[in-house]
Amino acid sequence: MIHNGKNVTDLKIAYIGGGSKGWAWGLMSDLAVADDISGSVYLYDIDYDAAKANEIIGNTVKNSKGAVTDWKYVAVKTIDEALTGADFVVISIFPGTMDEMNSDVHCPEKYGIYQSVGDSTGPGGIVRSLRTIPMMQEIANAVKKNCPDAWVINYTNPMTVCVKTLYETFPEIKAFGCCHEVFGTQKLLTDVLKEYKGIEGVKRNEIKVNVIGVNHFTWLTSAKYKNIDLFPLYKEFCEKYGEEGYGVKADTNWMNDFWEYAEKVKMELFLRYGYIAAAGDRHLAEFCSNHWYLASRERVAHMKFGLTPVDFRRENYKKLGAKSARLVNGEEQFEITETGEEGVMQIRALLGLEDLVTNVNIPNRGQIPNLPIGAVVESNAVFSDNSVVPVFAGEIPTVIHPLIARICDEQQMIVKAGIERDLELAFIAFLNDPLVSLAPPEARALFDEMIQNTKKYLTMYNVK
Amino acid sequence: MIHNGKNVTDLKIAYIGGGSKGWAWGLMSDLAVADDISGSVYLYDIDYDAAKANEIIGNTVKNSKGAVTDWKYVAVKTIDEALTGADFVVISIFPGTMDEMNSDVHCPEKYGIYQSVGDSTGPGGIVRSLRTIPMMQEIANAVKKNCPDAWVINYTNPMTVCVKTLYETFPEIKAFGCCHEVFGTQKLLTDVLKEYKGIEGVKRNEIKVNVIGVNHFTWLTSAKYKNIDLFPLYKEFCEKYGEEGYGVKADTNWMNDFWEYAEKVKMELFLRYGYIAAAGDRHLAEFCSNHWYLASRERVAHMKFGLTPVDFRRENYKKLGAKSARLVNGEEQFEITETGEEGVMQIRALLGLEDLVTNVNIPNRGQIPNLPIGAVVESNAVFSDNSVVPVFAGEIPTVIHPLIARICDEQQMIVKAGIERDLELAFIAFLNDPLVSLAPPEARALFDEMIQNTKKYLTMYNVK
Amino acid sequence: MIHNGKNVTDLKIAYIGGGSKGWAWGLMSDLAVADDISGSVYLYDIDYDAAKANEIIGNTVKNSKGAVTDWKYVAVKTIDEALTGADFVVISIFPGTMDEMNSDVHCPEKYGIYQSVGDSTGPGGIVRSLRTIPMMQEIANAVKKNCPDAWVINYTNPMTVCVKTLYETFPEIKAFGCCHEVFGTQKLLTDVLKEYKGIEGVKRNEIKVNVIGVNHFTWLTSAKYKNIDLFPLYKEFCEKYGEEGYGVKADTNWMNDFWEYAEKVKMELFLRYGYIAAAGDRHLAEFCSNHWYLASRERVAHMKFGLTPVDFRRENYKKLGAKSARLVNGEEQFEITETGEEGVMQIRALLGLEDLVTNVNIPNRGQIPNLPIGAVVESNAVFSDNSVVPVFAGEIPTVIHPLIARICDEQQMIVKAGIERDLELAFIAFLNDPLVSLAPPEARALFDEMIQNTKKYLTMYNVK
Amino acid sequence: MIHNGKNVTDLKIAYIGGGSKGWAWGLMSDLAVADDISGSVYLYDIDYDAAKANEIIGNTVKNSKGAVTDWKYVAVKTIDEALTGADFVVISIFPGTMDEMNSDVHCPEKYGIYQSVGDSTGPGGIVRSLRTIPMMQEIANAVKKNCPDAWVINYTNPMTVCVKTLYETFPEIKAFGCCHEVFGTQKLLTDVLKEYKGIEGVKRNEIKVNVIGVNHFTWLTSAKYKNIDLFPLYKEFCEKYGEEGYGVKADTNWMNDFWEYAEKVKMELFLRYGYIAAAGDRHLAEFCSNHWYLASRERVAHMKFGLTPVDFRRENYKKLGAKSARLVNGEEQFEITETGEEGVMQIRALLGLEDLVTNVNIPNRGQIPNLPIGAVVESNAVFSDNSVVPVFAGEIPTVIHPLIARICDEQQMIVKAGIERDLELAFIAFLNDPLVSLAPPEARALFDEMIQNTKKYLTMYNVK
Repeated sequence: MIHNGKNVTDLKIAYIGGGSKGWAWGLMSDLAVADDISGSVYLYDIDYDAAKANEIIGNTVKNSKGAVTDWKYVAVKTIDEALTGADFVVISIFPGTMDEMNSDVHCPEKYGIYQSVGDSTGPGGIVRSLRTIPMMQEIANAVKKNCPDAWVINYTNPMTVCVKTLYETFPEIKAFGCCHEVFGTQKLLTDVLKEYKGIEGVKRNEIKVNVIGVNHFTWLTSAKYKNIDLFPLYKEFCEKYGEEGYGVKADTNWMNDFWEYAEKVKMELFLRYGYIAAAGDRHLAEFCSNHWYLASRERVAHMKFGLTPVDFRRENYKKLGAKSARLVNGEEQFEITETGEEGVMQIRALLGLEDLVTNVNIPNRGQIPNLPIGAVVESNAVFSDNSVVPVFAGEIPTVIHPLIARICDEQQMIVKAGIERDLELAFIAFLNDPLVSLAPPEARALFDEMIQNTKKYLTMYNVK
Repeated sequence: MIHNGKNVTDLKIAYIGGGSKGWAWGLMSDLAVADDISGSVYLYDIDYDAAKANEIIGNTVKNSKGAVTDWKYVAVKTIDEALTGADFVVISIFPGTMDEMNSDVHCPEKYGIYQSVGDSTGPGGIVRSLRTIPMMQEIANAVKKNCPDAWVINYTNPMTVCVKTLYETFPEIKAFGCCHEVFGTQKLLTDVLKEYKGIEGVKRNEIKVNVIGVNHFTWLTSAKYKNIDLFPLYKEFCEKYGEEGYGVKADTNWMNDFWEYAEKVKMELFLRYGYIAAAGDRHLAEFCSNHWYLASRERVAHMKFGLTPVDFRRENYKKLGAKSARLVNGEEQFEITETGEEGVMQIRALLGLEDLVTNVNIPNRGQIPNLPIGAVVESNAVFSDNSVVPVFAGEIPTVIHPLIARICDEQQMIVKAGIERDLELAFIAFLNDPLVSLAPPEARALFDEMIQNTKKYLTMYNVK
Repeated sequence: MIHNGKNVTDLKIAYIGGGSKGWAWGLMSDLAVADDISGSVYLYDIDYDAAKANEIIGNTVKNSKGAVTDWKYVAVKTIDEALTGADFVVISIFPGTMDEMNSDVHCPEKYGIYQSVGDSTGPGGIVRSLRTIPMMQEIANAVKKNCPDAWVINYTNPMTVCVKTLYETFPEIKAFGCCHEVFGTQKLLTDVLKEYKGIEGVKRNEIKVNVIGVNHFTWLTSAKYKNIDLFPLYKEFCEKYGEEGYGVKADTNWMNDFWEYAEKVKMELFLRYGYIAAAGDRHLAEFCSNHWYLASRERVAHMKFGLTPVDFRRENYKKLGAKSARLVNGEEQFEITETGEEGVMQIRALLGLEDLVTNVNIPNRGQIPNLPIGAVVESNAVFSDNSVVPVFAGEIPTVIHPLIARICDEQQMIVKAGIERDLELAFIAFLNDPLVSLAPPEARALFDEMIQNTKKYLTMYNVK
Repeated sequence: MIHNGKNVTDLKIAYIGGGSKGWAWGLMSDLAVADDISGSVYLYDIDYDAAKANEIIGNTVKNSKGAVTDWKYVAVKTIDEALTGADFVVISIFPGTMDEMNSDVHCPEKYGIYQSVGDSTGPGGIVRSLRTIPMMQEIANAVKKNCPDAWVINYTNPMTVCVKTLYETFPEIKAFGCCHEVFGTQKLLTDVLKEYKGIEGVKRNEIKVNVIGVNHFTWLTSAKYKNIDLFPLYKEFCEKYGEEGYGVKADTNWMNDFWEYAEKVKMELFLRYGYIAAAGDRHLAEFCSNHWYLASRERVAHMKFGLTPVDFRRENYKKLGAKSARLVNGEEQFEITETGEEGVMQIRALLGLEDLVTNVNIPNRGQIPNLPIGAVVESNAVFSDNSVVPVFAGEIPTVIHPLIARICDEQQMIVKAGIERDLELAFIAFLNDPLVSLAPPEARALFDEMIQNTKKYLTMYNVK
C-alpha cells in the first residue's frame, strides 16, 4: 500500500469466501463510497465460478451511482494468490452446504429442541463449529505463510469459535471478529429516545454503550446519549411493550416472517436482570435455557420471534444466485447501498485515517476480568493506527454472569475439541449446552446422529 | 481454657442447636474419647427442653464404655449465655420445621422437579436458604458480641450459604464448614485399592486427595495412596461397575432404602469428565441438569439412588425423639460410637495438639483461582495452632468448570438476596438453578408457591 | 446545564484554587474559544482576594481577540457556594506556601539528595503529600455533599496521591487527574517523524501511543503515526542524540534555564529498556535510583536538566502577581493563547460533544493487570457521554516493572499514612523511596526535620 | 523402589555434586538414621575423585554409632548413570571455583559495595547466576531424559534462580528448593518463648509459621505456638535486644566470626515493618538497600554481622578436604549427627510415610497472589503421597511488598537473561539491584569487570 498521510492507495484486500452473495456485495458498496482508500480485492472461494462472478460484478461497481472510488476485483484460484502481500483479509465463508445446515437446525427438533438460527450455539452451532474449525486452521496457516502482518476480519459464524481458532493456530495473528447485532439494539435505543424525549434523527452510533459478553449474547451495562442515561427510559419502554412486543407491523402476519422478531425476549431479559441484552431475539433465545424461549413452537410464537427454516434459506440463496447471474450478464445494474457494517470504517481506522471506538470480538486479555483470559469475548475497542486495543469493559454483573460464563466455557471446550479432533470433549460441551435439555443417553443419540449427518465435512475426526 | 502444651482443660464449647438429636450425640461420643481435651459444652436451642434433655444425656456419657474424659453439659436459655467466653462454637440447627421441608422437597414435584435431598441446592435448597440466612446473621452477630475470637464450626445446610452468611455478617469471624461427604468417596477408594491391588485395612484418611468445588458438589483432581495413583484404578472400577452400580446389597430391595445409592451417578460423572465427583449420589444429582438424573422417578430408579421423602424424615425424627426420652429417663444407656466426623480432630488441631490436613468450607482467598474471590468453596486446608490455612487447590478443570461455576454464582446471589431481603434476586437464582427446567412463568408460579408455603419463616422479607 | 444535543449552556464549573495564577488563566483562554459550551465558573480559594482578582480578569476575557464565548466568572467565599450544583469541578491548589516547598526541595540537599522538581515523589513529594491529603479529603467530602454527580478534574500535584485520596474519601466520586507531560513526548516524536521521514506539520495528538505507568513516570509501549511504527525511528534518534542531548539551544546558557532539559534521561532510559519514558526529564529523574541521575550537581549537569530552585519559583510567582495586578487594573489586556491542555476537550467529550481518547489518572480496575487494583495509574481512556472508560493498557513490561511497581507501592502507603495520620507508615514509604539513599538513622533525621519544617500544615498528625 | 505401605526399599537417589564435602555427609547421616527407607545413592560430580571419596566414606556410615539402615553409595562417571531410574535427585553443586566466588564477593568492594555472603543476590549473586543457569539447564535436560518422574531437590544457590531454571527448561519437572534459613528463625522464636513464657524444650518445628517471600528474603506473617501468638512476644524481645543484639557471646570477639550475627538486622526489620524477617542477618542485609546495612564496614560492624571473606571459605574448604582424606583412609571415623535439614523427611513424606508441612521453593501458582505467577517463591507446602501442594500463603503485606517484589522481578529477569544468553538484560537486573548504589556508567564498569573475571564459566555468552 501507499500511504500519504491522508489517502491510501494500492491497498490489497483478500476476500476468503469471495464467491459470497450478499456479504461480498455489501463490501463492494462500502468500498465504492470510501473516498480515501483504493486498491484491489482478491476473491478466493472453493467455488471459483462464484468468485469469478463477483469479479465481474465488482468491476462494474465503479459505474454505479454514488461510486467515488474505483476498486479492482480479481478472482484467484488459490488461497495463496489471494493472501500474498495482502494488507487486509476478510473471511466470510459458509462452512459446508445447506444439507449440513439442515441437519444442524432441524435434526434436534425430533428431540424437542428448536433453534431459531442454529449457527452460533446450541446443537447446531456446536456441530457447525466442528466442521468450521479445521477450515479456520487452514486459513490461519495460510495467513501465517503469506501475510502474517495483515489484519484479518472475520464475519463467519460461529464467530467466537472462528476467531478463537485463528488465534490458537497462529497466536500472532492480527484478527478480530466483526458483528452488527449490537447495532440493532443501538437502533432500538434511538426509538426509545424518540419515544420518551422526542429526540429524532439520532444515529445508532451516537448511542454510547458499554458492551460485554460473547458474540450474539452480548449485553450492555450502560447506554447513554449525551447527558441522558438510557437505562431508566428503556425500563419504561420494556414495561410498556414487553408483553405485546415492539415493532410488530399490524398489517402483516408476523408468523410468516422468519427473520423478524418483536424484541420480547430482549425486553423480558432486561426486566429480569436490569441489563440490556444486545442482539436479535432469535440469537438471544438460543443462549438461554431451552425452557425459557424455545421449549416449543407455541412458546416461540408467544415470544414472537421466528424460527428460520433451512428451506427458507435455500430459497433465499437461490434468489441471490439468480440476482448474481443478472448482475453478471448486465441484466441488472449493481446498486450501491451502504450496509451500516463497520468493516470499511475499521479498515480506515487501522490505516490511521479516523479513530473508531466500536465493539469487536478478540481474545480476552483482561478487558472482562471475570471471563477466562484468552477466551474470545465481545466488548468495545479503540481502533487506530495499526492497532485494536480493547476498552476495559469491566466485570460481568453477577446476575448475568452464570448465563455468559457457561457459554464461554462451552466455546473454549469446543475449540479445544475441534483442534484436538476430540469428539468426546465436543460431546461434553454439547451435553452442557443450555438448549440440550436431554438425559445423557438421548443427548448422545442426537449428537451421534448429527455427526453422522455431516460426516462428509468431518473426515479429520475419528467418526465411526 | 487452660493449655499446658500437651493438654487443654476448661475448654468451653457452645452448641447452637444443642437440642439436636443425632449430631449432638455424635459430638458427645467423640469428645468422650478425646483424652487430651476437657471442659464444658453449653447447649442452646430454641427448643429449650430438647437442650435440657441433651444436658441430661451428655452428663451420663462419662459412664459409658470407652469414655476417657468427663465433659460437663449445660443447657442454657439464651444464646448469649452459651457464647460468652466460648472457645469453640458448633452450629447445627434445623431451619424451620418438617412442614417447611415438606414444601421445599415435594412442592416442586408438581412441576416435574424431583429432589433427592432438597436441603443444599435446587428449589428446596434455595427456599431453605432464604429462611436460614436471617438465622445465621443472628448467630454471627451474637458471636461478634460474645466471643469474637472463638472458632465457629458449622454443620448446618445449606453449608455454603450458611458459612458465607456468617462471613458477610461478621467478616472477622473464624468460621468454617465441616462436611463428611468427601470421606465417603475416600472410603470407596479404599474398596478400589482392595479390588485391584489387594491392599486391605487402609483407613479413609490415608487416601490423599485434592478437593475442589463447593460443598456437596466437590470433586477430586487427584487421589493417591502412597506411591499409587488411584485414578487409573478408579477408571477400571467405573468401567466394571458403572452400569450395574456398586454396593447394592443382593438381599435387600434397594428401592426401599431412601438413603442408599449405588454410586452410579458418581461413576458416570467420572467416565465422562475424568475427575472424581466426591459426594453422595443423592447430593451430586441435584447439582446437575434436571434432565440428567432427576428428570423422572424412572430415571432416578435407573440411576439407583433414593429420593428421601420428608415423611420418612418425620418418622426417623420421631424415633430419635423416643430414643432421647429413653436416654433421659435411663431406660437406655448412651453408647459411644466414633462418628468418623472430624470436628473433634479439628478442635484438637486448632489447639495445637496435632496437625491436620482436611477438606473444609471457607471463603475463597485464591485457593481456587477460577471461582470468585470471597465465595465459599470446599478444598483442603491445614489446621494447626489457632489457624486454618487453605491449601492451594488449583484451577477447576475446564470440563467441570461450567458445572461448578454456575452453582457458585447461584449461591453468591442467594446469600445477597437473603441479606438484602430481595426476593426478586432470589428468583433470578432460582430460575437459573439446574433443576429448574421450567419456562419463566412456571418457575415464577412454583417459586411464589414455595415462598407462600414457608412464609412463617420469611417474615423479614416483603412477601405478599 | 441545558443540553440541546449540539450545544450546552448554563454549565457550572467550580474552580477550587480559583485564585491560581497561570493555570486559571489557561482555563479562561481555553473556555473562551470553545464555541459549543458556555456558562459560569465559580472561583473558590483560601485567598479570596486572589479569586476576586481572577473574577475580574475572567470577566474581561470576552473582550480578548479570539474569544467566541462569554463565560461568567464569580469569586465565592465558601467551597459550598462554589460546588453547589456544579457540573464540573477543577482542582488546582498549591498546598502550603513557598516556605514549605523550600523545605521539601532543599532540606534533603544537606543529605546529598537533590530534587529537580520535588512535588511528585522523593522526600519532597512525600512530605508535600502529607499536607495535601487532608486538603483533598476536605474537598472530596465537600463534593460528596454539594455535587456528588459532578466530574472532578484534578491538576494538583502530587497527582497520584491527590486522585487516590479523592477516591478513598468518596468512592463514588467521578474524578480523574489530568497531566500534560505525555504530550511533550508526543511532540518530541513529531520531531523524530520529521527527522527521519520528512513528515512535517503532524499534531502531537496524531501520534497514537499506549500509555502505562504512574503520573510523571509514564511510559509508552507503542507509538505510531498512521502505518509507521515510531519505535525504530526513536531508537535511531536516541543513538544519534543520546550523548549530546536534543533541543539544547546553542546561543543560550542551558545551565541558567531551570525548566529546560535536553531529553538525555529520556533517551538513556529508552536505550536501556526499549520503552519510551514519557515525561519531562526533570520528573523522570526523580523516580529513578538517586545514583542514576541526581547523585550530585555534576551528575545533573552532565545529564543536562535543571534543578528548579524554590527561589526561582518565588520570583516567578511574584512576576505572575504583578501581571495579575495589571490585568485587574486594565494596564494589561488578557491575551488568549491555547494551552494545549485537554481539560476543555475532556469536558466537551464528557458532555457528548466529541469523543476523545487520551491519557488520564484514575484507579486501576485492571487496565494495568500487574499493578495493584485500586492504585491510581496513568493510561489511556475513552472519554464520551458522561463516562471515562480506561483502555486496556496491558501488563507493564518486565524490564521496567520493578521501577514503576515500587513507586506505586510507595504511593499506596503514603495515601494510607496520610488518611490514617500515621507518620510511621509515611516513614516506611520515605525510607523506601529511590531518592532516599540513606541509612535508616539518617533517613529518620531528615524525615523528622522535614516534618518539623512544615508542621504548620501537619497539625492533624501527631507531630512531636 | 519397592513400597510395602510402611517401608520402602531399593530406593535410588542420584546426587548431582556428589563430591560435596559437608552437604553430602549430612545427607549420609540423615539417611543412616531413617529406619523405613533404604537403597542406593549414586554420586555424580565433575570431580570424579571427590565422588569416589564420598562413595568410600558413605559405605562406612553403616558402621557408625546410631546407623540403623545400610545405604549403598556408588560413584559414577556420567550424569546419565546417576539419573537413570532415579526416584529422587539431589542437586548440590558449587558453580565455578573459589576464584570466581572471589570475584563475585570482593570485586564490588572497590565500588564501595560489600556483600556478606554474595551467593544469592547483589552483584555476586547475579554473576554467579549467569554461570549457574547453563549448568541447571543441563541437569534439567538430563532429568528429562533419564528420570522425568523423579523428585528433584535443589540445595544449590542462588536457590530461586536454580529452581526457576529447572522449571523453565523442563516444565513438567517435579522439583523444589530446600533451605534451612527459616528454621533458624523458628529456633530464635523458641528462645523468645522461653524468655517470656518460661516454656522450655520446644522444638523449632513446633513453632507454626506462615512463610512468604523469596529464598533468603523470607518473612513470617504469623508465628504461633499452640494457642500463643508469638508476635507480641517477639516485639518485646526486639525492643529489649534490638540495640545490643542477641546471642553475642561475651567471651569471644564477635568480629572474628564470619558466620555469626547478632540478629540486629532481623530485629530492626521487625520493629519497622511488624513482620518477621526469617533468614540469617547476613542474607537479609543483602536484599535491602545498600545504604541500610552494608554501606560500609563500619555500618556492618555496628549491625553486628559478619562479611564472609572468600579466603575464609578457601581455608574452610581445605579443612574439609583434609577431613575427607582422613575419613577415606580410615584415620577418622564417620560420625552421625542429625543435620536438622528436612531433605530426608521430605523424601519420606513424598513416599507417603508421614505427612509434612514445611517451607519450600517452587513456582508461584497463586499461593502468593501479589507476586508474578510462575516466579519461584518460598512458602509452606503440604508434602504427602507423591505431591507437594503449596499452602495459600496470602498476599505480601503492603509495607514489605516493594522490598520483595523488586527482588522477584530481578530474579525473573536474571533467569531470562541466563537462558537467552543476554548480558544486556542481565545488566538491567544488575543495575536495579538494591546493593548496586552506582550511577549507570560505574555500574557498567563493575559489571563488565565481574564478567571478565569469570568468563571461563561464561563461554556460552557473547562476552567480548
